[in-house]
This record gives sequence, structure tokens and C-alpha cells, in this order.
Amino acid sequence: MNAQPDAPRTPRDPEKTRDRILDAAQALILEAGFSATTVDAVVGRAGITKGAFFHHFASKAALAHAVIERFAEWDRKMLEQMVVRAERIASDPLQQLLTLLALYEEVFETQGDPSSGCLFASYIYEKKLFGPETIDVLRGSVREWRRVMRHRLELVLVKYKARREVDLDTLADLFYSLTEGAYVMTKTLDDRRLLARQTRELRNYFELLFEPR
Amino acid sequence: MNAQPDAPRTPRDPEKTRDRILDAAQALILEAGFSATTVDAVVGRAGITKGAFFHHFASKAALAHAVIERFAEWDRKMLEQMVVRAERIASDPLQQLLTLLALYEEVFETQGDPSSGCLFASYIYEKKLFGPETIDVLRGSVREWRRVMRHRLELVLVKYKARREVDLDTLADLFYSLTEGAYVMTKTLDDRRLLARQTRELRNYFELLFEPR
Repeated sequence: MNAQPDAPRTPRDPEKTRDRILDAAQALILEAGFSATTVDAVVGRAGITKGAFFHHFASKAALAHAVIERFAEWDRKMLEQMVVRAERIASDPLQQLLTLLALYEEVFETQGDPSSGCLFASYIYEKKLFGPETIDVLRGSVREWRRVMRHRLELVLVKYKARREVDLDTLADLFYSLTEGAYVMTKTLDDRRLLARQTRELRNYFELLFEPR
Repeated sequence: MNAQPDAPRTPRDPEKTRDRILDAAQALILEAGFSATTVDAVVGRAGITKGAFFHHFASKAALAHAVIERFAEWDRKMLEQMVVRAERIASDPLQQLLTLLALYEEVFETQGDPSSGCLFASYIYEKKLFGPETIDVLRGSVREWRRVMRHRLELVLVKYKARREVDLDTLADLFYSLTEGAYVMTKTLDDRRLLARQTRELRNYFELLFEPR
């Protein structure tokens, strides 16, 4: 739910032009929201012609959908890779979960500009502007995070017990909600250290919550 | 950082007309963002004339500022009252902190519609549209929450010690970030139970984190 993809690009390749449009749109949406992001501004920022824009996207709504779909896909792949890395680094399920969080903290500490925020939150606060299939991308992302984190927690609970009565979905949602909220604070205060510091507290919580069976 | 004020109103009182405009604007902003909220839509929703609107607000920017100022003031007063109640209910500083969170959970469970979201997040995701004095209202709110929560934690640390190395500002920010993120999730999934469930985990964390000195 976090950073932005960036890739080197050459101007003439159609695939690269599409990415350039999506990059420009994404940056503008994170600055002022989707409603305020005009096609003219996207075209200007991407350094392309309006003709090239409409060659790739039939409408602003089509652009909105493509931007969030790319972001969600990138976010999903990153989570998948982080899980693979955490599983390689640690063997104990609790340590794997803590490692997964720690790997994200590394990204939060080093990524370009956390104060640009998260595209999911940007979209959901203009919810009424988007069609149901675009909102479904946001829902799919929340559910995928819940599914993955819940699975990690189920593995933990085979070897550990929780010191408090817990609801697994609620625990699974914590990382998503904490990062989304930390992005809101980061954007407000322009404090780049805030994001990693907030998620560090979730590691503390999980460490304190679980004890060996 | 949470619910919306609502007050009964009569049409002819100028103060009531102003509130009605602010109520309409706030609801529309939470649905589709500030950029997409036209003066015509506010006028229509408030059931007033355009003349009455411009009698109260010189511009859309003036409206934006008044909406967030009222919301921040309401939020600040609610926090103040919640602290007073928590101090009456409990005498131990840790119990006061846990009670404060529990009182907010009660509000989250019963308030009208948490899926409408939080106005602070809505504004910050259209940051570039607002002047510095409007963004200052958002910053002031984050800092006020940090100040109040940090003070509660300092009182806790007189009698308790933390089982983990903690940064007080980071701990103090947790409630704000967790609720902001939970609003994003609630808006995405339309699940009204989510907000109270997420903040409940913070109570668990504080219970586990602090032990008597």
C-alpha cells in the first residue's frame, strides 16, 4: 500500500508512453486528488501530446482505473516478494511475521517520498467519482492484505498463543490501517520518519502479544 | 479526529444558515472530495439560495477553511471532554489512558456513519488545493493530539515502565494514525465495526507494554 514504481523509459515506445502517462497522473493525483487532475495537466507533466494521451486512454475514467490497477498490482507483487524474503530470512513463524514488518520498515525509511501518500486513500476520499469496478480494485487490495496477513498469523498461532483475546481479521488489518494512517500524518506534518516509526510499534505489539505454547 | 457534529436548526437564523452550509459542504466533501464539491451542489443540499451562500462565504476557499476549522474545533473539544471523563472514571494514569481509548471506542461503535471518513484525511489528500492557513489547521490538530496523548503517557511513565524501548511522540501518535487508517479501510469496505475493532488493539498494546515500576 505504499511506494511508487519508477522505471527508466524512452519516449517512443508505446508501452513506455503509457507508463509515462500513468506516472504523471499518479503524481498529480497524490498532490491534489483525482478531480483536480486535468487531462491537460497530465499531458503537460508527461511531456506528450493530447493525441498520444487519447490513443492510450479513452477517457479520464479509463485513466483513473489504469492508474489504480497498476498501483494495486505493484503493491500486491511487493507484498508477495516481501513474504518470500521473510520466509527465507527466518524459519519461526513469529520471526517471519516480524521480519516481514521490518522489511517494510526498511522500505519506508529509504523510499523516495512517503509524504506523497498512498493512492488507495487518495481514491477512497473521492469515492463518489469512481465507478464500481475502480472501487473494487481498492476493496481487492484490502482483502488481499487481510488474506496474506491472516495466513501469517494463523501460522504463528500454531506455535504461539496470544496473551489477549484477539480477532484474527482485526489483527491482520492492523498493518494496513496503521500505514494508511501514518501516511495521512506524514502528508500533514511532512515528517518522513513518521511512517517507519509508527509501523515499528506494531512489531512491538506482536512481540508482546504472542508467547510460546 | 472523528465524527460529525449535528445540531437541530431553523431556517431563518443566520448562524443556523451558516451551520447548514457547513454541514452540506462537509457531507459533500466526504463523499467526493473538495475539488468536486461545487458551490451549486452545496447550495442545493443546504436548501438555500446562492445569495445566502455568498452572504456567508466570500469564496469556495473561505468555505473550505470554515469547514475544517469547525471540524478541528469540534474534534479538539471532544478530546478535551473525553480526557475529563477518563480522569473522573479512573484514578490510575494507565487506567485513565485505557479509559480514554475505550470511551472513543464507544463513540466509534455508535456514531452515525464512520464510513463517511475523516475530514482531515480528505483535505490532506487534496493538499495542493488549499492555502497554508488551511493546512495549518490540519497540522495544529495533529500536534494537539500528540501533545495531549504525550502528556497522558508521561503520567503513565511515572508509575509504570515500558517493556520495550519507546519514543513518546511515536506512541502518542498511534491513536491518530490508527484511527485515520481505520477510516480509510472502513470507507473502502463499508464495514462499520472495523474502526472500534482496530483501536481496541491499541488498548491491548498499551496494556501489554506497561508494567508497574
